[in-house]
Amino acid sequence: MKILFITGNKNKVDEANDILSKLGYRVEQFLLDGQTPNFIEPQSSSIAEVSEFKIQQALELISGTTLENHALLVEDSGLFIESLNGFPGVYSSYVSETIGNQGIIDILANKSNRNAEFRAYSILYKDGKYYHGLGICSGRISFQIKGLNGFGFDPIFIPKSGDGRTFAEMNEEEKESKSHRGESLKIICEEINHPSK
Amino acid sequence: MKILFITGNKNKVDEANDILSKLGYRVEQFLLDGQTPNFIEPQSSSIAEVSEFKIQQALELISGTTLENHALLVEDSGLFIESLNGFPGVYSSYVSETIGNQGIIDILANKSNRNAEFRAYSILYKDGKYYHGLGICSGRISFQIKGLNGFGFDPIFIPKSGDGRTFAEMNEEEKESKSHRGESLKIICEEINHPSK
Repeated sequence: MKILFITGNKNKVDEANDILSKLGYRVEQFLLDGQTPNFIEPQSSSIAEVSEFKIQQALELISGTTLENHALLVEDSGLFIESLNGFPGVYSSYVSETIGNQGIIDILANKSNRNAEFRAYSILYKDGKYYHGLGICSGRISFQIKGLNGFGFDPIFIPKSGDGRTFAEMNEEEKESKSHRGESLKIICEEINHPSK
Repeated sequence: MKILFITGNKNKVDEANDILSKLGYRVEQFLLDGQTPNFIEPQSSSIAEVSEFKIQQALELISGTTLENHALLVEDSGLFIESLNGFPGVYSSYVSETIGNQGIIDILANKSNRNAEFRAYSILYKDGKYYHGLGICSGRISFQIKGLNGFGFDPIFIPKSGDGRTFAEMNEEEKESKSHRGESLKIICEEINHPSK
């Protein structure tokens, strides 16, 4: 089955496809006339709210088109740093593009608590039903930028369940086994295969 | 004439009222059933876009009610730091609430360029017409948090046109004479009094 992933981030599509292809799904980027539609992302403190908002816009947009019968996937994710009251949170991609990894390290220079969480909230819409998955990966912010894989804050995030390397120092398989995005998608797959309600 | 200011920030209402009352307007906070309506602020890199979005929502909301004949004011503003690619920009209030003034000073610790701009984009809707005003105040980020007046990033912003004090070290009158918000409102007033088109 084909799943259309509503995102402007090609890295996310690849990551989702790696995970879901093992379960028999093929993930492609959602495009209209060859472009990612310009969705409104609300300023909100909740990744769940941002995801809900995006899927509703997408459903309105495809209503009555040939895309109507496809499964749709949206995801919103962010890095939540404990000592910074959850910053950069839902604004992670903006913060990543402006102050970047070094900016985060600089803000934390004088903080002893470096705990952080990556969170992803995915929603799959399929055959008139919604499937939700929240994935959380606990860890800490590194003192230095390390590794070249991944994207966003991967080079400064050390997952708790690892061996001290950042996400960007891991290969795709290792990262996917621990990642928040992977977890959120696996929860959705379980829900589809074993519906509880 | 009464102007209803759509904002959750009471400080902004007071500041606008100080400026506009001299021109014969009375500014009050826009409330529905005693509360600020929960508007969606889009994630966008433009304060003009955020303002446009807010006023359209407000107009939809009051359509057909007794508020329909009042003038409406919206404003979006932010601090744009040159060496941080415009960060925190449209997300200023979120960044102020999470990493705060000290966070900004910490990110800039190793930067020699401390230039920044405060920008405000106001839109007034009155008698079926829209009046737009962009106000910009150039300055730099201080090395220390200074002063107790104002709000948000006022204690770390030193306007270029001043004497080295931060906005938070100035009294209301001094700040209003230089402020981005003041300028954006004055532009709108001029436009109302001397329509060019």
